[in-house]
Amino acid sequence: MMKIEGLIAATFGAFHEDGSLNLSPIPDLVEKLIKDGVAGVFICGTNGEGPNLTVEERMTVAEAYVKAVNKRVLVLVHVGHPSIAESKKLAAHAASIGADAISAVAAFYFKPGSVQNLVNCMAEIASAAPSLPFYYYHVPALTGVGMDMIDFLRLSEGVIPNLAGIKYTAVTIFEYQACLNYKNGRYNILYGYDEMLLSALAVGAGGAIGSTYTFAAPLYLKVMALFREGKQEAAQQLQLKLVEMVRCLLKYSPIPAQKAIMEMLGYTLGPCRLPLVSLTKQEAAALKVSLQEVGFFEELEKYTAGRKQEVSA
Amino acid sequence: MMKIEGLIAATFGAFHEDGSLNLSPIPDLVEKLIKDGVAGVFICGTNGEGPNLTVEERMTVAEAYVKAVNKRVLVLVHVGHPSIAESKKLAAHAASIGADAISAVAAFYFKPGSVQNLVNCMAEIASAAPSLPFYYYHVPALTGVGMDMIDFLRLSEGVIPNLAGIKYTAVTIFEYQACLNYKNGRYNILYGYDEMLLSALAVGAGGAIGSTYTFAAPLYLKVMALFREGKQEAAQQLQLKLVEMVRCLLKYSPIPAQKAIMEMLGYTLGPCRLPLVSLTKQEAAALKVSLQEVGFFEELEKYTAGRKQEVSA
Amino acid sequence: MMKIEGLIAATFGAFHEDGSLNLSPIPDLVEKLIKDGVAGVFICGTNGEGPNLTVEERMTVAEAYVKAVNKRVLVLVHVGHPSIAESKKLAAHAASIGADAISAVAAFYFKPGSVQNLVNCMAEIASAAPSLPFYYYHVPALTGVGMDMIDFLRLSEGVIPNLAGIKYTAVTIFEYQACLNYKNGRYNILYGYDEMLLSALAVGAGGAIGSTYTFAAPLYLKVMALFREGKQEAAQQLQLKLVEMVRCLLKYSPIPAQKAIMEMLGYTLGPCRLPLVSLTKQEAAALKVSLQEVGFFEELEKYTAGRKQEVSA
Amino acid sequence: MMKIEGLIAATFGAFHEDGSLNLSPIPDLVEKLIKDGVAGVFICGTNGEGPNLTVEERMTVAEAYVKAVNKRVLVLVHVGHPSIAESKKLAAHAASIGADAISAVAAFYFKPGSVQNLVNCMAEIASAAPSLPFYYYHVPALTGVGMDMIDFLRLSEGVIPNLAGIKYTAVTIFEYQACLNYKNGRYNILYGYDEMLLSALAVGAGGAIGSTYTFAAPLYLKVMALFREGKQEAAQQLQLKLVEMVRCLLKYSPIPAQKAIMEMLGYTLGPCRLPLVSLTKQEAAALKVSLQEVGFFEELEKYTAGRKQEVSA
Repeated sequence: MMKIEGLIAATFGAFHEDGSLNLSPIPDLVEKLIKDGVAGVFICGTNGEGPNLTVEERMTVAEAYVKAVNKRVLVLVHVGHPSIAESKKLAAHAASIGADAISAVAAFYFKPGSVQNLVNCMAEIASAAPSLPFYYYHVPALTGVGMDMIDFLRLSEGVIPNLAGIKYTAVTIFEYQACLNYKNGRYNILYGYDEMLLSALAVGAGGAIGSTYTFAAPLYLKVMALFREGKQEAAQQLQLKLVEMVRCLLKYSPIPAQKAIMEMLGYTLGPCRLPLVSLTKQEAAALKVSLQEVGFFEELEKYTAGRKQEVSA
Repeated sequence: MMKIEGLIAATFGAFHEDGSLNLSPIPDLVEKLIKDGVAGVFICGTNGEGPNLTVEERMTVAEAYVKAVNKRVLVLVHVGHPSIAESKKLAAHAASIGADAISAVAAFYFKPGSVQNLVNCMAEIASAAPSLPFYYYHVPALTGVGMDMIDFLRLSEGVIPNLAGIKYTAVTIFEYQACLNYKNGRYNILYGYDEMLLSALAVGAGGAIGSTYTFAAPLYLKVMALFREGKQEAAQQLQLKLVEMVRCLLKYSPIPAQKAIMEMLGYTLGPCRLPLVSLTKQEAAALKVSLQEVGFFEELEKYTAGRKQEVSA
Repeated sequence: MMKIEGLIAATFGAFHEDGSLNLSPIPDLVEKLIKDGVAGVFICGTNGEGPNLTVEERMTVAEAYVKAVNKRVLVLVHVGHPSIAESKKLAAHAASIGADAISAVAAFYFKPGSVQNLVNCMAEIASAAPSLPFYYYHVPALTGVGMDMIDFLRLSEGVIPNLAGIKYTAVTIFEYQACLNYKNGRYNILYGYDEMLLSALAVGAGGAIGSTYTFAAPLYLKVMALFREGKQEAAQQLQLKLVEMVRCLLKYSPIPAQKAIMEMLGYTLGPCRLPLVSLTKQEAAALKVSLQEVGFFEELEKYTAGRKQEVSA
Repeated sequence: MMKIEGLIAATFGAFHEDGSLNLSPIPDLVEKLIKDGVAGVFICGTNGEGPNLTVEERMTVAEAYVKAVNKRVLVLVHVGHPSIAESKKLAAHAASIGADAISAVAAFYFKPGSVQNLVNCMAEIASAAPSLPFYYYHVPALTGVGMDMIDFLRLSEGVIPNLAGIKYTAVTIFEYQACLNYKNGRYNILYGYDEMLLSALAVGAGGAIGSTYTFAAPLYLKVMALFREGKQEAAQQLQLKLVEMVRCLLKYSPIPAQKAIMEMLGYTLGPCRLPLVSLTKQEAAALKVSLQEVGFFEELEKYTAGRKQEVSA
């Protein structure tokens, strides 16, 4: 079964000014991410505004990524939807276009009422793409579905044959550590809170999926390197910079704020769709100042340059 | 603008045993509801398992209802969806097939963060069917979006020209009463908790939308009649029967439990879709016993017969 | 067992400017309430800032009320506390000074985990004042303890011999109606949301406890009279005025806002204790204007005068 | 200002079988904890059932601990209470008997409505023991008060002169890391989720307060030692054992379950007070089996023995 190491960037949606889908930024973004050293992309998820897209649009975006990536890194397609029937269409489509894996959140209008019910729902979705590894996307803060993930793994056995693991987006690291070690590490549990990456590494994380890896992967890769070299204090100091960056975002709606950062870095992804609202120019300017104050761009520059040298060397 | 009086039945989804959509029970169900005296149907909402259907299925269901109803009562089509783009497709479709009104819940993955944001989202949806009256479907217990509805009405002015009112599914009757009286009763505020209908009537409710009106409308119409005739104690006693009926449901998942009641009454609507789970035969039998114990079927028989006589007279 | 009809005023705490307890306003307040026609007072509850007082202060306040009331109306003493041991002291004290009944919220740090556990907790408290009627104070919005109240009544049988009923402060009127009718109305279920009094009357309420009865009892008594006379529309119009009054409060912290109204009516109760914060003079002035705009004082004047004539006649 | 390093054991309440306070186990427990290597005790907090005790009982317990400890390690007294007036009495008492520090949760009936309000509440309490270091006890899962802790530190400046830091009992390690580094580490931020200790160490934690340090401190001290020696994998393995131990507890009410463990280790602390309920003998036996299965006692034995040798050496 798939075992992802490293960072997967949960990329952002791209729209024209009138709100229609814009596929044109995808190739450049993919090149940037590959240069930045990510192991793959996670698309049409929370940060990709998957729930704001139509099913057709989600398929179109998936095709564009698979084409742009062209097998150089992994493409994980999020297929979660309140309607399992729609999820199955998205899953089958992802398989048909050559995506590397699929992932789904729990249904979030009618919410699963027990772990067994959640497993049954996910089994239904996963069965529509039996050849692809399946990751349950655990994100209780958004879905309101907060089940015990060890119970999920246990009850999935034999029911979801293609279960590869969990995209674990929760702050309960003790449960995360238990999942990592379930049946001697049989499943691939990818951590989802970028601002707690170092804490996840400390308990054994090997891979992570997150939105800020779209624009700050070199910094996080350096955290991982420092951690592995036993340079705990340096790792802490760099993770602290990243915490400070994330705290700057939290004053705003986080997804629009991150798209504003992409813009600052030269990647124009356009507005968000309602109910998300783009930052005003004033807000974006204030965000930029606060990021400068915590030294974010400076650090980013330093480690991105570092990466480029390594790559060209 | 539309002003609905009386009861709108929020009907249930119908599926074949394999989970595929089953349109065949719709005509019979519609005839029953018209005989029962409802003023209309609300379709593809919570009880209609709208969120469990694909967009195409929702359109198909809407067409089947519009055809079966054939203008004899109202057809309200629920078009709410986490993706506003999908909602707009559903809204335009509803207009094109001759539905009488549309309604939408708030987006429920990314949730509106302010009343203004909610108004902007609803305006976007309503604009896709400008000829149809639009009802905001306020159901905070399911969407987690619990805004002040007076603020919603106030901020909608000029922004949602086709706003007819609110499907108000919350127990906060004091706010409901304020909405009813906003600008001298300008908006049509339909009450959504069947088990509190009498309390809503007491503060001035004229119309209501609810799931149990699909199988118990004659009882509720009698409550309304008794209330209007000033027979408060008799109204209370009958409403109490209905509260006891609803309390029987609450021991189970309410939508599957109500579909089991439909089955008891001779209307086979098939299973629910995941994450909803049909009652087992044992559970359905136990539900039947508890409904018999509170005298539900007896009362239903009595007032349904009463209605039939009135109709035939 | 005790069966309270009419209105119980949940009175406010009174403090000197330095935050120390001030007993001196109590006698005047009691005279006013008796003139206003209340059936009793509920003291040291939420609105009486019971949780902000020490145990000794609560006892002192209870003594002052019992003395001032002097058996003319009922005195209900709230004895709820996170520590059941403290609650028992308060309960025994209430019995010893001649209070008429006691009431307690669920423990609210460690919260009861089941209805049986809640019953056991309340039984412990009630046993400390076996001669007094005991009312469970159900207020899930504040305690976070939201159990099924029919189950509570059922499991209390034989376990809380002095259980008189429930102070039911929740908007779920269907459950309230079920409680009212439990075992043919064996228990005294007092409704606790003043702004929904008419809805509670509609399902059979006979008595109610609430904070706004401290300053607006004549209006609510008129609602009750109109309801009983079958003047539903007039009752609605007056209840609407009261809803509008309560909506004025909700722009502020409700308890301090109500103490500001008491001040406007000539009853100086002093500041609130932290974490509650008194309204600023500016806020109080704005509140006054908004109450004037909805015609609150005018209505209050009208029906208070009406009551005075009746009383003097 | 005080800067605690190492582990503070949040000890459990001790009661006779009839529920009355039992001070007699305190001296033995203190000796055990000192042998186990803790830096201090935190008393009358959540695990000490502080909210279940009367104010007088809390004072008695505090005196017993101060006497038993006799300045060999630190005594932190929890003085949080819904009534700030009671908190102040407890704070002044703690200072008068020679406790080393005080700590308080936010008021939890009326909850602070803003960070400034929270700061004002804590300032009031801290002012009653101006000579003692004060720790705000941040435990949103129990109090429902979840403010931004960086804002708390910022607004406390000049308002709480004796603020030493925060007992940070939340899983949001990114905020914890930000607090640790606020103004170059000016405050002492003690971590409160034992099952995530390693993750807290990874971001720079120096000290921690927790209930399981009452019976498993040697294991956690070993985790800390391994972490400092750069033996990351060994630290992970041992932390995993502790996660598995905590997961055994979570099947039961955690505080009673931990008191059952104390009993297994030879420390009889008696029952819990309502609303907490002791484990049945059967439950305690099942807990013991599950702890044996994850190898908890074996590990505990190993590292406790290790500590004894070190101490005697």
